Amino acid sequence: MTSITDLIRKKRDGGALSDEEIKTFIHAVTNRTIEECQTGAMLMAIWQKGMVQEEVETLTRAMMSSGEVMSWPKEWAGLVVDKHSTGGVGDKVSLVLAPALAACGYKVPMISGRGLAHTGGTLDKLESIPGFNVHQSAAQILEILHSVGCCIVGQTETLVPADRVLYALRDVTSTVNSLPLIAGSIVSKKGAESLSALVLDVKFGRAALYKDLQSAKELAQLLVCVGNGLGVPTAAILSRMDATIGGCVGNSLEVIESLETLKGNGPHDLMELVTTLGSLLLKMTGSVSDLSEGRRRISGAVIGGAALSKFQAMMEAQGVANETARSLCSAHTDYYSVLRKSEHQMELKTPADGVVVDVGGLMLAEVLHKLGAGRSKAGGPVNHSVGAELLVSLGQRVRKGESWLRLHYEDPAPSPDQIHGLQSALTLGTRESTQTRTLVEEVLLPQ
Amino acid sequence: MTSITDLIRKKRDGGALSDEEIKTFIHAVTNRTIEECQTGAMLMAIWQKGMVQEEVETLTRAMMSSGEVMSWPKEWAGLVVDKHSTGGVGDKVSLVLAPALAACGYKVPMISGRGLAHTGGTLDKLESIPGFNVHQSAAQILEILHSVGCCIVGQTETLVPADRVLYALRDVTSTVNSLPLIAGSIVSKKGAESLSALVLDVKFGRAALYKDLQSAKELAQLLVCVGNGLGVPTAAILSRMDATIGGCVGNSLEVIESLETLKGNGPHDLMELVTTLGSLLLKMTGSVSDLSEGRRRISGAVIGGAALSKFQAMMEAQGVANETARSLCSAHTDYYSVLRKSEHQMELKTPADGVVVDVGGLMLAEVLHKLGAGRSKAGGPVNHSVGAELLVSLGQRVRKGESWLRLHYEDPAPSPDQIHGLQSALTLGTRESTQTRTLVEEVLLPQ
Repeated sequence: MTSITDLIRKKRDGGALSDEEIKTFIHAVTNRTIEECQTGAMLMAIWQKGMVQEEVETLTRAMMSSGEVMSWPKEWAGLVVDKHSTGGVGDKVSLVLAPALAACGYKVPMISGRGLAHTGGTLDKLESIPGFNVHQSAAQILEILHSVGCCIVGQTETLVPADRVLYALRDVTSTVNSLPLIAGSIVSKKGAESLSALVLDVKFGRAALYKDLQSAKELAQLLVCVGNGLGVPTAAILSRMDATIGGCVGNSLEVIESLETLKGNGPHDLMELVTTLGSLLLKMTGSVSDLSEGRRRISGAVIGGAALSKFQAMMEAQGVANETARSLCSAHTDYYSVLRKSEHQMELKTPADGVVVDVGGLMLAEVLHKLGAGRSKAGGPVNHSVGAELLVSLGQRVRKGESWLRLHYEDPAPSPDQIHGLQSALTLGTRESTQTRTLVEEVLLPQ
Repeated sequence: MTSITDLIRKKRDGGALSDEEIKTFIHAVTNRTIEECQTGAMLMAIWQKGMVQEEVETLTRAMMSSGEVMSWPKEWAGLVVDKHSTGGVGDKVSLVLAPALAACGYKVPMISGRGLAHTGGTLDKLESIPGFNVHQSAAQILEILHSVGCCIVGQTETLVPADRVLYALRDVTSTVNSLPLIAGSIVSKKGAESLSALVLDVKFGRAALYKDLQSAKELAQLLVCVGNGLGVPTAAILSRMDATIGGCVGNSLEVIESLETLKGNGPHDLMELVTTLGSLLLKMTGSVSDLSEGRRRISGAVIGGAALSKFQAMMEAQGVANETARSLCSAHTDYYSVLRKSEHQMELKTPADGVVVDVGGLMLAEVLHKLGAGRSKAGGPVNHSVGAELLVSLGQRVRKGESWLRLHYEDPAPSPDQIHGLQSALTLGTRESTQTRTLVEEVLLPQ
């Protein structure tokens, strides 16, 4: 029997770990029989030396098998789907896509995460809705999928315990951005959902984990390979993440924008992501023969209101009072009769005449994070009402002194430096028509 | 204030840590405010990316300052010396050199270690003498240096606590053989002894940590630089470690061979190391003007019996009964009236006629370790009476069936495989005169 110290040495020296060795490591992590310093050293050795694809597949499978693996009724074969995003600013795709897929007859056991630093978390967004309970057991998830078709929940205690341990340690040991560790973490959790198909939104750009397309593509390719290797038909898109997705950033503001989208008033970029990702799932599960038909089906579910009904039913199933859910989903509602509005708002003005050529999503997110919209430490609090609404769109011509951003804040109030930071996010140009850049740069289908 | 996570990231990416950053790390290690997984990750990052010399000096100084630094009476200026070896098989130099230096008027506060895996530990050897107490406080060390001139003791609680933490973690995280970490560990402890001069025996060869001269030389150069950078005049030798040093391996057997050496009957290689290392200390502290005079002084102290008297006095000062000490040091003693003899002995026979051209020290040590002479885990027990005596010497002509090794064992008895292993350590050749290889390959003096 090889000792953990030997395994660390092997990876330290760049060797490929065998199936048995990887299982030994994950087993020790799950049972806490490994010393934490050894986990730290192994994570750093993996960061430094990487893993070949076979190792990543074994790692992912071992992590997946470290806890419960969900099972579904036979009649759902080919219908259980999910998507995962590597994280963006203002990324509210899940809130629209999950109910749209449910409206198309799918079962979506969406297990989401919380935000950390400048990236928002789907669970945090939903928790700005009074009563919304993201903690659901495996049995409750099954029940909600029966009755509604979709749920958005936190990781259960029993699902992929190895990932919970490793993720917490990666965070404090500066080993988060390691391709094999990212792939293992993402795909093991989705694998434990026993999916019929999975689609991944891998982001690149100035406000993404990977700044350049090439690095993001490397990750996307690995994820697709590992997912399919695990027996889950997996596709990925590479989508640009420079500005924000939609016009709202911040937990309750993003819920409002999602609801508006489900009412047919969604921003173009958000709808583009929802229909692209949804159509891939429809195609992979054989519901449609081409992607454009898939797009029409998803888009129809959103525009026609079926997705909104599913969202309302999901809220109710996850603990939101019927009246609250109905109010949020009705046509001309005052959202702030339900959602808490921040105590203060402030409008930032454009410094000159010009055309909006860029809004730096990362800068917005970083300032909002400091104002309480995000958490600095896992488990810390967030202020759901802090956020920002863009009042202009890319390519729009503005006059000096126009309002371009509405900031929602409480305590702390933004410092002059922070306001300066927000202002610097706006880039004005001179040309009437700005170059529009493709949002979805590439699609990777299962081989 | 930079966080530990940031420091790990910087080293992970190959950056050089600043003085402040290294101090922050060592401070957190000493105060246990760092998470162990972070220490593991940092050690692996250092293993992978190394450190520039300036970083190693800062690391060493910070480790040294993590606890008490000894201070000595003014009249000992220029007289407090020590040596350190990177570890060999049958290396009993300390047991002879420390009393020899004391006999020359020096003060030797030798802080030694225990054995782990196939390397023996000076403290384990001494503990095979009934009553010998290696646990001495700083005050007791001072007293023994006053009365005797030398002591050989374990690391005190208060000396270099950062090293105790790091060393234990390096062991289980496969980060022991990292040049900066080795240098930091060795030199910080010697620095805390406030030495007038330090000499290092850096071993290379088949039974050493470094198999090739070049790697060992790299370490030796770093140690000499860092030691002198810390203000301790430091020299190093590079000595070959293929066969055993002397003819005995195993704790009590090595005590017997050391005592025989102090009685003037020492093997040539052991005396060569003792006189080489001792003469360097004498030269660095200005007692002699050239090394050959230094050799004569050390050799005289051993041959003339002065070193033996010091060893006897040291044993008594460290808890051994006067009668026991006297008996061990008398001319025609039966060592086994004092030291415990193993229950069983077995003599291995030469498989053919020939000339002894090699005895693989590593193989001997590995089998003896499994038979209980060494420990597999820090803090584990050792069997002091287990060991082996070489009954032939390199270059000796033997006939088939002659005894060449006497194995001392208890429980477990050696397996057929282990006996086969021991036999494979012996290489017989045909040539009458074997090529003799230099023991001390190179000497590095302070710049």
